[in-house]
Amino acid sequence: MFRDLSQPISSGIQTYPGDPPVDVSPAATVDDDGYRVSALACGSHSGTHVDAPSHTEPAGSSLDEHDVGRFVFDARVVDCTGREPRTPIGPDALPGDDAGDLLVVRTGWDAHWGTDRYLDHPYLTPEAADRCVRAGWSVGVDALNPDPTPSPNAIDDEPSGFPTHARLLGAERFILENLTNLAGLDRFRLYAFPLPIEDADGSPVRAVAAVSPS
Amino acid sequence: MFRDLSQPISSGIQTYPGDPPVDVSPAATVDDDGYRVSALACGSHSGTHVDAPSHTEPAGSSLDEHDVGRFVFDARVVDCTGREPRTPIGPDALPGDDAGDLLVVRTGWDAHWGTDRYLDHPYLTPEAADRCVRAGWSVGVDALNPDPTPSPNAIDDEPSGFPTHARLLGAERFILENLTNLAGLDRFRLYAFPLPIEDADGSPVRAVAAVSPS
Repeated sequence: MFRDLSQPISSGIQTYPGDPPVDVSPAATVDDDGYRVSALACGSHSGTHVDAPSHTEPAGSSLDEHDVGRFVFDARVVDCTGREPRTPIGPDALPGDDAGDLLVVRTGWDAHWGTDRYLDHPYLTPEAADRCVRAGWSVGVDALNPDPTPSPNAIDDEPSGFPTHARLLGAERFILENLTNLAGLDRFRLYAFPLPIEDADGSPVRAVAAVSPS
Repeated sequence: MFRDLSQPISSGIQTYPGDPPVDVSPAATVDDDGYRVSALACGSHSGTHVDAPSHTEPAGSSLDEHDVGRFVFDARVVDCTGREPRTPIGPDALPGDDAGDLLVVRTGWDAHWGTDRYLDHPYLTPEAADRCVRAGWSVGVDALNPDPTPSPNAIDDEPSGFPTHARLLGAERFILENLTNLAGLDRFRLYAFPLPIEDADGSPVRAVAAVSPS
């Protein structure tokens, strides 16, 4: 059994502020051409996607430097739902053991996808990122960003920039963003194959969980 | 163990004649923005990709109408290598039993990817398509198209248009095009998850085989 953990892609979907807009438009039609083809324009970090180390680290690897099997993860979920907007998630909220190779931090913020509130997600502190690195985990979130995202609601003592990205990507881990549909998942195999883009700093993915039949 | 069956994506890669060009260009840089993002423009049938029934059939389904598990295939390979350019592959060349749910027709034409010769691949006859429909197979090819592709080398008695597409997609099967790296594969689990594009007539995929360690 497989479960889709991906946000849908269509024209005008929410992106990280300033990222290329997403557009899907007709390029050929059955009536005019005998077949239908669409033109897709998007950023490499559109929708549910994977960040390469090169996203923030000049010496970081690109996605296509990795064997495709690296994108089949032994994933586990930690429940961090019920938090206030723009609150930090520290290392104490994370599992105490090191099992798995990807930690999915479930914030519940996917419920706000497509609204301004989606920008005001909880975030991982740099110390939480350090804990993930020590555990050997890549990180997934059901939010736009494991660092705070700029918004009119930003607060004074937030970290700025990408310290959590830098710790994870600097350690050659991957980050999955904009996951959804995590309810009831605990530990599972996660498929998140990037498109085979050359020198990719990131790629949209179809994130899919293999789950046991209930 | 996993094996990548996908052609790489970069600016200017070969497409079906007339399809939108593929372009990958910088949209943000670490130096200027603190992070690197690329802008991707492509057609829905760029690179290694999956065709939805709606690609040629006005009443056909789009990819997002299907459960994501439909894109995990019980695939088998039939060896049709060694053929002359633009030659037909008929039903006699296909397996006699109906095992599997996706038949990968290996032509060897992936060796010509990126050259004019890539347009002159062997093709499946409509009768071969009928055989696939009766067997319950979707179809994959290591070529641009299971129908003949227009080229200066087209010959007089070739079928024109998309009769093989129409038979397969009209029966609500999927078609995978531009596969590569098939040598030595026989029967295997094939992952070909499309991007979650709304009303998708097709999508680039990372096609991945699960293979036993040798």
